[in-house]
Amino acid sequence: MNTTAATLSRLFSSIQADLDLVDKTFQERASSGLDILNSASMHALGSPGKRLRTAITLLAGKLKNYNIEKLLPLSVAYEMLHLATLIHDDIVDEAKTRRGQPTVNAVWGDKIAILLGDYYFAKTAGLIADIEDHRIDHLFSDTVATVCEGTILEMMTAGQIDLTIETYYEKIKHKTACLMAACSKGGATVCGASPEEIEQLYLYGLHLGVAFQIIDDILDYTQDQSTIGKPAGNDLRQGMVTLPLIYALQENASADRRQQIQHILGGQSQDEDEIRSVVDWVVQSDAINRSFEAAEEHGAKAREALYSFAPSSHRDILDELVDFVIVRNR
Amino acid sequence: MNTTAATLSRLFSSIQADLDLVDKTFQERASSGLDILNSASMHALGSPGKRLRTAITLLAGKLKNYNIEKLLPLSVAYEMLHLATLIHDDIVDEAKTRRGQPTVNAVWGDKIAILLGDYYFAKTAGLIADIEDHRIDHLFSDTVATVCEGTILEMMTAGQIDLTIETYYEKIKHKTACLMAACSKGGATVCGASPEEIEQLYLYGLHLGVAFQIIDDILDYTQDQSTIGKPAGNDLRQGMVTLPLIYALQENASADRRQQIQHILGGQSQDEDEIRSVVDWVVQSDAINRSFEAAEEHGAKAREALYSFAPSSHRDILDELVDFVIVRNR
Repeated sequence: MNTTAATLSRLFSSIQADLDLVDKTFQERASSGLDILNSASMHALGSPGKRLRTAITLLAGKLKNYNIEKLLPLSVAYEMLHLATLIHDDIVDEAKTRRGQPTVNAVWGDKIAILLGDYYFAKTAGLIADIEDHRIDHLFSDTVATVCEGTILEMMTAGQIDLTIETYYEKIKHKTACLMAACSKGGATVCGASPEEIEQLYLYGLHLGVAFQIIDDILDYTQDQSTIGKPAGNDLRQGMVTLPLIYALQENASADRRQQIQHILGGQSQDEDEIRSVVDWVVQSDAINRSFEAAEEHGAKAREALYSFAPSSHRDILDELVDFVIVRNR
Repeated sequence: MNTTAATLSRLFSSIQADLDLVDKTFQERASSGLDILNSASMHALGSPGKRLRTAITLLAGKLKNYNIEKLLPLSVAYEMLHLATLIHDDIVDEAKTRRGQPTVNAVWGDKIAILLGDYYFAKTAGLIADIEDHRIDHLFSDTVATVCEGTILEMMTAGQIDLTIETYYEKIKHKTACLMAACSKGGATVCGASPEEIEQLYLYGLHLGVAFQIIDDILDYTQDQSTIGKPAGNDLRQGMVTLPLIYALQENASADRRQQIQHILGGQSQDEDEIRSVVDWVVQSDAINRSFEAAEEHGAKAREALYSFAPSSHRDILDELVDFVIVRNR
């Protein structure tokens, strides 16, 4: 077991049984009468994440009147929604692998991948319906719409060397952080939290999600294929301008360097030596440090949102989760 | 105004104001903060259907305690879900036009089309949430899952010359009829129908939908581009085996003819003269008549489901709608 897995195992020990129950229920609810859907589904499930979304949902519930009957369909729904968006994202990004595994579109083709994503959306709606709470119905719909808007914003701003910090944050809030915010907000909602408490837990998830994405964007520059399952500089290769690049460009970019980056972002050059050169230039600048600082600022805001809750072991775990998200693989 | 439009205008006169309200609400609810979504959305909306689904939903409600506050979001949701599935279908089918208009994927590319479809799913879930009826939440989820399964079944059975009549019906029930059944069932549900009445209206929509699809499949052989906006023999060209072809093959197919059809279905031949020859062969057989008889049988079952309701002008319209679906463009 590596350090990451050991840390998560310790942090999640109080909810381990329910995390396993969520996994089991996911498998049951994802099944279909059609073999190909089951095969593609089992394939997609073969590369599990760190179950961070489920943990956030359950732990938010632990701060109030923990109700596993409601938290179970909610958690399964979030994991399924996340999987549906990954499957469609991989088509949009023409990704061939994710975490070292071939994507659904790589194995089964775009058509099956579109339909499997749609099928998961449908199943997610069924899980949400089981909760029988209209606030959750609206949270689900708003979350899916926001994630779609974030994905489109990402597409539309791809290749833009002059992407502003404001648009970067809008993009990651919509595309990534909003789902984590929905997890903590939803967990609180179904466990009897007050409107003020729900709002605080929403802010916790939102800022945690922003920090999470900034770290992901840093790792894309600092880590290589063996660690994160994709080559360093992947965002650059895909035309994605992220926080480290924005900071590096602010710092000291010669006209030649800007032109080189613009060519890579615009797809006119996919030369691996040039990409490597830009990655090294970003890593050697102060951009990585400044990006970590930005992640830490959002981490602090996530923690601040927890302070309206009475001290408890579960509040401590949510607090530690902020550290985990920020220091992972550093 | 052509005969079809004149007939519908007469049939729908009692619900015309609410049909217009559904259109207007659709436009409002489909809007986004992102320009490209609005442009693609307005484009997709530019080719309206016959509003058959909305009419079925509203008319089912007219049989009971007509409640436009619930029927409005429900009808908009069904039209939006239908549009979402069309947008994703057009990607899967690589369709360049629909009803003579370029498809979203043809104008904006597959990526935007995937995301616009997802965005509509999200918005549909929001409309369903507004109804605040858990039976409708489940009906929505089940309907989307069934439509996905139908689309996948269609894909998986494409090119199969030996498609059975049973599989053909399973495919069209899942892909097309289930949404019409959800319209009449949903309309009845939100207007206070009893479980027995809801079941009867479900059967009405299901059989009407089956008849509708059989007629569509007949028209694909008997009509040309100027009438239905796509060339005759399009299903054949796409590898789709439908009822007219199944009947024609049962009747009298030489080994040469079978081989010719197998080549077209499997994509080994896309020769327009060969496709024309197969279309003519099907049209000149008894297959078209037998397919009309099958559509009429389902039309009769749809009508039968109406007889448990007291006679009324609205029951008469639902009855006439069966004729309309079967005789359109004959």
